Amino acid sequence: MKKKYLLAPGPTPVPEHVALEMAQPMMHHRTPQFSAIFAEAASAAKYLFQTEQDVLILAATGTGGMEGCITNLFSPGDKVLAVNGGKFGERWGKISQAYGMQVVWINVEWGQAVDPAVVKAALEKEPDIKGILVQASETSTGVAHPIEELSKLTRDRDDLLLIVDGITGLGVFDLPMDKWGIDAMVTGSQKALELPPGLALVALSAKAWKFADQSKCPHFYFDFKKEKKNLADKTSAYTPAVSLVIGLRRVLKDIQEEGLENVFKRHDRLARATRAAVQALGLKLIAPSAPADSLTGVFVPEGVDGAKLVKSLRDDFGVTMAGGQDQWKGKIVRIAHLGYIDTFDTITAIASLEMALKKHGHNVELGKGVAAAQEILLEAY
Amino acid sequence: MKKKYLLAPGPTPVPEHVALEMAQPMMHHRTPQFSAIFAEAASAAKYLFQTEQDVLILAATGTGGMEGCITNLFSPGDKVLAVNGGKFGERWGKISQAYGMQVVWINVEWGQAVDPAVVKAALEKEPDIKGILVQASETSTGVAHPIEELSKLTRDRDDLLLIVDGITGLGVFDLPMDKWGIDAMVTGSQKALELPPGLALVALSAKAWKFADQSKCPHFYFDFKKEKKNLADKTSAYTPAVSLVIGLRRVLKDIQEEGLENVFKRHDRLARATRAAVQALGLKLIAPSAPADSLTGVFVPEGVDGAKLVKSLRDDFGVTMAGGQDQWKGKIVRIAHLGYIDTFDTITAIASLEMALKKHGHNVELGKGVAAAQEILLEAY
Repeated sequence: MKKKYLLAPGPTPVPEHVALEMAQPMMHHRTPQFSAIFAEAASAAKYLFQTEQDVLILAATGTGGMEGCITNLFSPGDKVLAVNGGKFGERWGKISQAYGMQVVWINVEWGQAVDPAVVKAALEKEPDIKGILVQASETSTGVAHPIEELSKLTRDRDDLLLIVDGITGLGVFDLPMDKWGIDAMVTGSQKALELPPGLALVALSAKAWKFADQSKCPHFYFDFKKEKKNLADKTSAYTPAVSLVIGLRRVLKDIQEEGLENVFKRHDRLARATRAAVQALGLKLIAPSAPADSLTGVFVPEGVDGAKLVKSLRDDFGVTMAGGQDQWKGKIVRIAHLGYIDTFDTITAIASLEMALKKHGHNVELGKGVAAAQEILLEAY
Repeated sequence: MKKKYLLAPGPTPVPEHVALEMAQPMMHHRTPQFSAIFAEAASAAKYLFQTEQDVLILAATGTGGMEGCITNLFSPGDKVLAVNGGKFGERWGKISQAYGMQVVWINVEWGQAVDPAVVKAALEKEPDIKGILVQASETSTGVAHPIEELSKLTRDRDDLLLIVDGITGLGVFDLPMDKWGIDAMVTGSQKALELPPGLALVALSAKAWKFADQSKCPHFYFDFKKEKKNLADKTSAYTPAVSLVIGLRRVLKDIQEEGLENVFKRHDRLARATRAAVQALGLKLIAPSAPADSLTGVFVPEGVDGAKLVKSLRDDFGVTMAGGQDQWKGKIVRIAHLGYIDTFDTITAIASLEMALKKHGHNVELGKGVAAAQEILLEAY
C-alpha cells in the first residue's frame, strides 16, 4: 500500500460526498429537473463572487473563461494592459495577442506583486488602454496582486475595465466583485471549488456588459451574451457539463454553510502555518512580500535538485505537490492550501517536505517545521 | 418510488462501473501517472476514429470541437459549404460566419439526407469552396448524411476538406476516417462514449494538418497544433478534464473489447427494432429514407400534443426522451439508441411510448410495437 495525498494547487482533492453525488445516474440537460440544479448553482455562485450580476457556467477549463473575457469584451486593435508576473499573467497577454489586440506588458519580477503606481503611470501614458488584465493569485509564483488598489484606477472610468483571473484566488481570499468594482472575474472548478477540472465560471459588471455590446472579436462557443440570455431560462447555450454542474451546486451549498468569511480564515490559517513552517526550516519563500493564501512556494535549498525532490515526494512518499514552471522549473516546490485541504493535510505537506529534504541530503531538523505549523493551526481548536 | 430511465440522444446513461471509476480520488494532471492514462485514452480513440492520426482530447463539449475545426483549418474570407438539414448543420454555418467565412448553404429539407449530386454541383459552380461541413448523423432529425459518397468529392482534391460532425455518429455506425478520407471528425463524450458531457475529441487528416499550417483564424483555447505537440508529450495544452479522461479510457477499453463491428451491429439492431415498432403502431418516422442508427424520431399523431407527450413520458412514466427542436418543436419524439442502451431499454422506450400515447387519447394497441421490436431484438440471443 502506498496512500496518495494530493497537495498541488489544482486540481485539488474532491470531497468524497461530492464525488459520489456526481456519480449519480446521468440526467438530461433540457429538463426542469436539471434546469433547477443549473439555476441553483448559478445563483449560489453569486455568493462566491460577491456579486448581484449573473455568473455564467461554461463547459471548459479556466483558460476558456479567460479567452471568453477577451473575445466578448474587446475588439481587434484594442489596447489592453497585461500584468505579467508569471505564467498566467503572460497567458492574459498571449490570448489578447491571438485575437489581434495591442498588449501593453507590465513585466513584474517573479515572486513580486505589481506596483499599482506603475500601472497608474502606464494608464496615464496610454489613456486608450481599455482593460487591465491581472491575476488575483498568480499560481506560478504564489503572489497575490493588489486587486483592491487596482480597482481604484478603473472603477470611476467607464472606458476601462478591470479583468481578474480569480482561478486560484476566488473562494480563497476576499475578492468582493461588486464592492471593489471588478469588471470581469473568472474561476475554474478544480481549485477552491474542490471539483474535477472542466468548468469555468465568469461574471461581468454592468460596465463590462456594455463593452460586450460593442465587442467585435469573433467568438461562438464562448458567447457571454448568449449564455446570459440562456441563463435567464435556467439553461446554457450549449450542452452543459452535467455531472460537474451537479457537483458545483453541492460545493457551493457547502461553502454557503461554512460562510465565506470562515473559508477565507481557513485558507489564511493554513497558509500562515505553512509559511511559518518553511521559515522555521530555514527555507526561502518565493513570494515573501505578497503571498497568496492559495499556495505557498519555497525555493529548494542549494544542493537539492527540485525536480527530483518533487518526484520523490510523489513517488516515494505519495505526496503530490507542484514544482516550478518556466523559469522556476526545478527550483521550487509549491504546496496548496486551496479547496478541500485542512489541518492535517497541511501537517502532511510539511512533514513530507521535511522527510524528503532529509532523504535528499539536506540537513533538516525533523519536526521543526511541523511544530511551527502546529502553533498556528491550533488557533482553530 | 419513480424510477428514471434516460433514453434521449445525449447525454446518454453512464455505465455504473464508469461512473464509479470517475469518482476515484482526484489526481494531478502533470504527473506520469495521469500522462499514462491520457496517452492510453488518446491512443484507444484512434481505434474509435479508425485513424492512424492523433486524436485530440479537449475540455469542452462538441460545439467547442466544431469551432476548433473552423478556426484551426480556415481563414477569414474562406468559402465553406454547410449542409443545413437541421439544427446542427445550421450550427456549422453559424460558427463559420462568426469567424468571417463565406458560407454556401446547401439547405436540405428536415428529415432528408443531402443529395451528393447537389453538393457536387455546388462545388463545380464554386470551385473555391475549401471545406464541406456536414453531420454524420443530424441529431435534430435523426438523418444519416451520405459521408462515404461525399468523401468521393473531396479525397482526390488537396484544396478541399471534408469535415464531419460525428457527435452522434461516431461509435454508432461505420465512419472509417482514414479509409474514406474524412479530413476532420469531431465527437463528444456524452453520446456513444457513454460519459457525462465535457469532452470533445477531434482528429485531422494529413491534408487537414496542412490546412492548419495556413489558417489565419484567431484561436487560443482550441489550438490544435499546440494540442498535437502536447499530446506527443502525453499531455494537453491546458488543464484536461481529469475525471472525464479517466472515464474515457475506461469506455474506450470496453468498446475495444466489444469490437467496433459488434458496437455497430448493436446500434443497428436497436434502431431497426424501434423503427419496426413505431411503424407497427402506425406512426410516421421523421427520417424514413436515411435513418441514422443513433436515434429514431417519430411524428406525434394528429390530436396529440407532442410537448405534453414528452413531458408526460418524463414526469408520469419516468422515461426521458427528447422532443423536437426548432421547426419540429412539439411535433416529434426522439428515442435514443446510442451509448449504454440495450435490448430492454429499447423495450422500455416502446412500451412507455405506447402507454403514454394511450393515456393521451391516441388509439393504440398496447404491446403491438413491443412485439414487433421483440422479433428483431431476438436476433441477438
